[in-house]
Amino acid sequence: MRIALGVEYDGTDFLGWQRLAHGVTVQGALEQALSRVAAQPVTVTCAGRTDAGVHGRAQVVHFDTEVERDMRGWVLGSCSNLPTSVAVLWAQPVPETFHARFCARSRRYRYTILNRTVRAALDARYVTWERHPLDAAAMHEAGQALLGEHDFSAFRAVSCQAAHARRCVLGLEVRREGEQVIVQIEANAFLHHMVRNIVGSLLMVGRGQQPVAWLAELLAGRNRDVAGPTAPASGLTFVGPRYESHWGLPAAVSA
Amino acid sequence: MRIALGVEYDGTDFLGWQRLAHGVTVQGALEQALSRVAAQPVTVTCAGRTDAGVHGRAQVVHFDTEVERDMRGWVLGSCSNLPTSVAVLWAQPVPETFHARFCARSRRYRYTILNRTVRAALDARYVTWERHPLDAAAMHEAGQALLGEHDFSAFRAVSCQAAHARRCVLGLEVRREGEQVIVQIEANAFLHHMVRNIVGSLLMVGRGQQPVAWLAELLAGRNRDVAGPTAPASGLTFVGPRYESHWGLPAAVSA
Repeated sequence: MRIALGVEYDGTDFLGWQRLAHGVTVQGALEQALSRVAAQPVTVTCAGRTDAGVHGRAQVVHFDTEVERDMRGWVLGSCSNLPTSVAVLWAQPVPETFHARFCARSRRYRYTILNRTVRAALDARYVTWERHPLDAAAMHEAGQALLGEHDFSAFRAVSCQAAHARRCVLGLEVRREGEQVIVQIEANAFLHHMVRNIVGSLLMVGRGQQPVAWLAELLAGRNRDVAGPTAPASGLTFVGPRYESHWGLPAAVSA
Repeated sequence: MRIALGVEYDGTDFLGWQRLAHGVTVQGALEQALSRVAAQPVTVTCAGRTDAGVHGRAQVVHFDTEVERDMRGWVLGSCSNLPTSVAVLWAQPVPETFHARFCARSRRYRYTILNRTVRAALDARYVTWERHPLDAAAMHEAGQALLGEHDFSAFRAVSCQAAHARRCVLGLEVRREGEQVIVQIEANAFLHHMVRNIVGSLLMVGRGQQPVAWLAELLAGRNRDVAGPTAPASGLTFVGPRYESHWGLPAAVSA
């Protein structure tokens, strides 16, 4: 049978999502825990791989198993075999036609910037520090140029292995909450480093180093070399994928 | 001259605020950093000492020094000599009559409970996990019995060294924000473990183990032995003290 899981993780101490032969990864920790619960090897497929230091709020994975366990058993059993920085939030049987990656209709990311003169002490794992005052309204306005379907080559990592660079951005919001500036982006899918590269360019607009129209120019130019630097990983959280409601998954990951 | 500082810290890896001969404390780390900036020994006095694992959002300290440094020098110099879990947010000269502890008109604490079936992975340092569904409205109602000036012996640690147990609770709010239940308490001052003991009793009301009227009964009985257990330290943050506005301190710590 096929089972879907919701997974939360603090990515600070991991080398990223994807299993590595040598190195601690979220996928590796999760598969080890599930394999203990199943008493046989389990491999998982996720909705969206994350880089080293990036967090997951509602990552979704699926796996196939012939082992009979109730859903509570998968959740509690894996949690007790995971490090404290990873938790399985829910487990649910899904049809064989469900695929965590291919069925995801969209993905949401959140980037948190601590915008003050002094670095973070509290929440240091979850924010990126920016000491120059940011104009969040200008960043928001600049970001609206990215909405819709475009070629996002300007914000694509050299290492990106996607077949093409066309993606559809469904929403992009930048807002200030006290000392924090929060960027939320939803797209059908993302290129490698796409969120961090967009945030790196938005930061240049926020600092006043580039005009509001710059994001539209970068997008049209399709040239990664002229866009802003890749923003650090620590501020980034994969909020989670969204699936069609007919799959019956929890509200946090349902459209 | 006397200088006041705002201090933020993640208390997870400290043995509490107060300097110890053997052991890592927030006061010890701060005094070490300030002494380096001053190039002579500096000792600080804080608004409110916190226990091991308790965090500080806007702790205030004062110290006396004859060394001439601009305020930016105190902030940036101490930050660069502090571990990443402590930051000095601001520095300001104050009159010799200012005292971080005695001039504080009130103190505010925040307690965050993650209320879901599965333990925390993200934010695990900043929350206490409660798996049983909590009735936040009942907790709020129960807590209103504590408002005003009372003898808080029912919520006082055995180790408390205060001269008497009379304190004035100025505000107590319990509210749900998604999976979190947040308790905010402001009082003129607190007894040792007072917030965590109040939260421990509120949790029993929230779980339905005790009626809403129980907090009033506990308060009237003045007997620590019958109140709820001390809630864990990790959910607790010292939001900060409040001073009369005439001291001219930053808005976060000004009445």
